[in-house]
Amino acid sequence: MTFLNEVAARYPDAISFAPGAPHGTVFENVDVARLVGVFEDHLAAQGLGPAQVRSRLLQYGPTRGLLGGLIAASLRTDEGIDVDPEQVVVTVGAQEALVAVLRVLHDPVRGDAVAVTDPGYAGIHGAARILGLPMLAVPDDGGGPDPAVLRTVVRAAERTGRRVRSLFVAPDFANPTGAQMSLAAREELLIEAERLGVLLLEDTTYRFTAPPGAELPSLKALDRTGQVVQIGTFAKIGVPGARLGYLVADQVTDAGTALADHLTTVKGVLTVNTSPITQAVIGGLLLEHGCSMQRLGASKAGLYRRNLQLLLTALRRHLGDPEDADVSWNEPGGGFFVRMSTTKPADEELLRRSAEDHGVLWTPMRYFSLGNGEDRQLRLACSSLDPEQIDEGVSRLAKVVRS
Amino acid sequence: MTFLNEVAARYPDAISFAPGAPHGTVFENVDVARLVGVFEDHLAAQGLGPAQVRSRLLQYGPTRGLLGGLIAASLRTDEGIDVDPEQVVVTVGAQEALVAVLRVLHDPVRGDAVAVTDPGYAGIHGAARILGLPMLAVPDDGGGPDPAVLRTVVRAAERTGRRVRSLFVAPDFANPTGAQMSLAAREELLIEAERLGVLLLEDTTYRFTAPPGAELPSLKALDRTGQVVQIGTFAKIGVPGARLGYLVADQVTDAGTALADHLTTVKGVLTVNTSPITQAVIGGLLLEHGCSMQRLGASKAGLYRRNLQLLLTALRRHLGDPEDADVSWNEPGGGFFVRMSTTKPADEELLRRSAEDHGVLWTPMRYFSLGNGEDRQLRLACSSLDPEQIDEGVSRLAKVVRS
Repeated sequence: MTFLNEVAARYPDAISFAPGAPHGTVFENVDVARLVGVFEDHLAAQGLGPAQVRSRLLQYGPTRGLLGGLIAASLRTDEGIDVDPEQVVVTVGAQEALVAVLRVLHDPVRGDAVAVTDPGYAGIHGAARILGLPMLAVPDDGGGPDPAVLRTVVRAAERTGRRVRSLFVAPDFANPTGAQMSLAAREELLIEAERLGVLLLEDTTYRFTAPPGAELPSLKALDRTGQVVQIGTFAKIGVPGARLGYLVADQVTDAGTALADHLTTVKGVLTVNTSPITQAVIGGLLLEHGCSMQRLGASKAGLYRRNLQLLLTALRRHLGDPEDADVSWNEPGGGFFVRMSTTKPADEELLRRSAEDHGVLWTPMRYFSLGNGEDRQLRLACSSLDPEQIDEGVSRLAKVVRS
Repeated sequence: MTFLNEVAARYPDAISFAPGAPHGTVFENVDVARLVGVFEDHLAAQGLGPAQVRSRLLQYGPTRGLLGGLIAASLRTDEGIDVDPEQVVVTVGAQEALVAVLRVLHDPVRGDAVAVTDPGYAGIHGAARILGLPMLAVPDDGGGPDPAVLRTVVRAAERTGRRVRSLFVAPDFANPTGAQMSLAAREELLIEAERLGVLLLEDTTYRFTAPPGAELPSLKALDRTGQVVQIGTFAKIGVPGARLGYLVADQVTDAGTALADHLTTVKGVLTVNTSPITQAVIGGLLLEHGCSMQRLGASKAGLYRRNLQLLLTALRRHLGDPEDADVSWNEPGGGFFVRMSTTKPADEELLRRSAEDHGVLWTPMRYFSLGNGEDRQLRLACSSLDPEQIDEGVSRLAKVVRS
């Protein structure tokens, strides 16, 4: 990513399909002071006096966090997921959640490995590397990880003395592919994961962008056997600056202890506790949206769906058929990302020329892959752009990939 | 610590010398909205428009953080330490700083080990364990780690194929011992560390409580050879709820790269970036105190010195001579902690009886030690108590340790 950042810094006027950051306008109604006030009123309504409210926000706080109740209520309202507030662990963004869950579930000394959908989120790669955990790729060609391939990967690992404990998967509009798993694919993956004894680490970041009525149940909502640990973030439905994420873990370990307790312990070793101030900001947003993450996300989802449609329309206008043999792309129903394939290596040299000669940026798909199979693919993100930028950007991109 | 928390929950009315948390009254002048406003004005004065200011607080931010300039300015003003803002990495409390610096400096596969002053801060033990790093104890009998003992530990480790890369040390009023290193001890430790090629990880948490005029230079202020990485926190001089800490690293690695850049990369893998909202809160506090951490801490230090003096006075009143053969304790010049030795094991059974029969709590020193040499010692913390609690608490404690 360093190269990408350097290129972006060198060509500040280039239209960039690189960052998957929220659009600037979604912050217009976010006022830190107001939201903290909403959460303080919520605490006061529970019977806390002014000094106690102040202390709740400014003193050390519980490692598990203050929002377990609100998040559990939201999961129940939005998805019918029934978990106890104690089974929710608030983290410093989804990233800390990834580090904590990998650390709790895997022991590199014991030979544990983590399977990752590939290409996949770079954050899971970083988390595994920092913990010295081997990663095994389960390719995603468009509809999520194939259960049969997962089985092959797990069995092959076992023959080398490795035990695959978990698979990281984002079933809804995954970063970087935009892929969504069908309901059948979700159910098959759950069955195979149970058979293999592999926990599914479900990333729900882009779930909120599904078109109304077209939402599919999350893996956790379908989970009947405790096969799924869900990882969520408020970076896209709320504000990234709050650095707020969470883990949902209702499992009991072989030792009879709650998995959420182990996650809490490791989270405490990473950062002691999540700032109650930023929890108040997100708590305020949840309270203002009827304790529903879906409702909170809905106010932004329209903008992102508009941008995605503009991107897909511009791609057809400037590049023709999405299933063209030379330049093809998928057409996700939601999310921030489109996956494009070209006949030429989508490498740093092409990226440099793209910026220099055409004023357009994107991300090489290889940045998100463990292998070398994604060399002719690129990721297009549209979340932070304005309509006119999207069309103009695609017209420039067309020159890059067709030249 | 779980046992301690359980006992504390079972005896909520016990006077507790256990927690090293800030006193509740230090939050009275802390208003999140005001402080965020101060920092926003500071950004606006740098030429940022309203939308840019909002985005700076709510959007993703730089992994290194936003406060490098203010912290570097403070280090210069307070201590004459001359570092570039780029050599400061803002972290989610000192705890994340510990995890990041241990991860960057040590490779468990290569056989690296970390030396720790013993007894010492439990957070460093957790950070090393989570990374699978072996720890080696360098005993602290009252004036910090002995350089000769450090040398023995390092040489012994080398004979077993381990390389000691760093020593964790808190020279000023360390948690849990309250010990302060003399100026000569600091200089000797720096010389020995350079000779051994061991980096000193200096924790400055309680430095601000030194009596005015009696401050000793920090290890980093004395460092002429790049031997010290300093770790700071705003939990005690500011508010714990901001979860704000930092690393000061001006070293260049053997590969010619900046150590601060490596720390930033690992920090990014742990939590992406530190919340700009909580950085604004601490930035506001710094700006209100002339960009001086010392001035910011000074407003609280008086209260903590008062509490410590009350504790020391009460100990003499109820227990007599601090150098008594049966029950003895040190008399630190600052900090939150006193170290007490008794003739009986200061274990969980004594703690349980202490709570049940006498209504007083404390922390067994063994919680802070790698070995078993601290079995008859306990830690007394006085930071969060009120004067009448301190005297009454010590009168109860006297019955526990004399009975």
